[in-house]
Amino acid sequence: AHVPFSTQRYTEEDMVKRSKAFYELLNKRRSVRFISDEPVPREVIDNVIKTAGTSPSGAHTEPWTFVVVQDAEIKHKIREIIEDEEEINYKKRMGDKWVNDLKRLRTNWIKEYLDAAPYLILIFKQVYGRLPNGKKKTHYYNEISVSIACGILLAALQVCLQFGEKQEVDET
Amino acid sequence: AHVPFSTQRYTEEDMVKRSKAFYELLNKRRSVRFISDEPVPREVIDNVIKTAGTSPSGAHTEPWTFVVVQDAEIKHKIREIIEDEEEINYKKRMGDKWVNDLKRLRTNWIKEYLDAAPYLILIFKQVYGRLPNGKKKTHYYNEISVSIACGILLAALQVCLQFGEKQEVDET
Ligand SMILES: Cc1cc2nc3c(=O)[nH]c(=O)nc-3n(C[C@H](O)[C@H](O)[C@H](O)COP(=O)(O)O)c2cc1C
Ligand SMILES: Cc1cc2nc3c(=O)[nH]c(=O)nc-3n(C[C@H](O)[C@H](O)[C@H](O)COP(=O)(O)O)c2cc1C
Repeated sequence: AHVPFSTQRYTEEDMVKRSKAFYELLNKRRSVRFISDEPVPREVIDNVIKTAGTSPSGAHTEPWTFVVVQDAEIKHKIREIIEDEEEINYKKRMGDKWVNDLKRLRTNWIKEYLDAAPYLILIFKQVYGRLPNGKKKTHYYNEISVSIACGILLAALQVCLQFGEKQEVDET
Repeated sequence: AHVPFSTQRYTEEDMVKRSKAFYELLNKRRSVRFISDEPVPREVIDNVIKTAGTSPSGAHTEPWTFVVVQDAEIKHKIREIIEDEEEINYKKRMGDKWVNDLKRLRTNWIKEYLDAAPYLILIFKQVYGRLPNGKKKTHYYNEISVSIACGILLAALQVCLQFGEKQEVDET
């Protein structure tokens, strides 16, 4: 169905307000390595992923797969695989320069949060797709497209989980 | 300064509401090839770019440069460069398969909107940086990081310019 593009506009004042409030909200996002095990409704996670799926993509190929893991045992297996790979990264794969460049972040290969988080969202890029005739379908700019979708996903998580936006909108 | 991480939470009901409203708002975004020349306050664009700059990045390298172009003459020069390159893309560089894959998007190398849009935001990835001693600084995952920042930028533009969120929040 053809959906006409909306042309309604905010006033300039409202645009400025919204741009400030959204900046303040997103500026609170941090990559944390301690994650609360507090539950979050599954519906929120599903909507956040649907939001990421609105992302633009090269030639509209939508080259992404999102997998939500909630099962404690599978989360733990994923943690084990990642910790094993990360230990290799830190101890030999990536080399002294990488280890040194990361030092000030004080990260390491132990990732308890992979057990604690109520959900893990695994994001895969589809480097190619399949046409109805079985042939490979080129996914133009697949890594860029998936990464843009990740940016939108992070913004959506921030909107849903980070307290603060409403207040700031009201205060300005 | 150390900023303690906020632990205040929305109620589950509010989280679900926000996730729906944000999905509906972002789902209205479209890659348009006709752009209005209606003015938008420069402050909004600056805040949107500041928001993109809150993006995560590999080893906190922030490997991006955002350039805002407002001058009509420079916009036109950029249009000429892009149209020349795109004409080569369509006519010989990318090949028949690419041209064919793009057909249903009905795009071409003519980009009038580069003159019409009140601002062009050019986004560059910094493939490496410079250390104080002049040596090259590795920018880990620079393309992924810039693309995530672009996703956040698109979300911010949508929040500031696309009418509709408030209503939906109120109606649900
Ligand atoms: C990495 C990337 C490159 C793109 N390149 C072009 C392009 O060269 N020309 C164009 O008109 N659209 C381009 N697009 C826009 C896509 O065609 C568009 O996102 C896709 O058709 C989905 O439509 P939507 O963005 O309206 O949801 C690009 C999008 C991405 C993410
Ligand atoms: C592409 C990419 C890869 C990253 N890899 C890791 C990682 O392997 N381990 C980790 O703890 N953080 C990782 N991070 C998080 C960055 O260290 C973090 O974004 C950066 O230090 C800035 O902090 P902030 O996200 O809190 O703003 C990564 C971020 C990006 C964008």
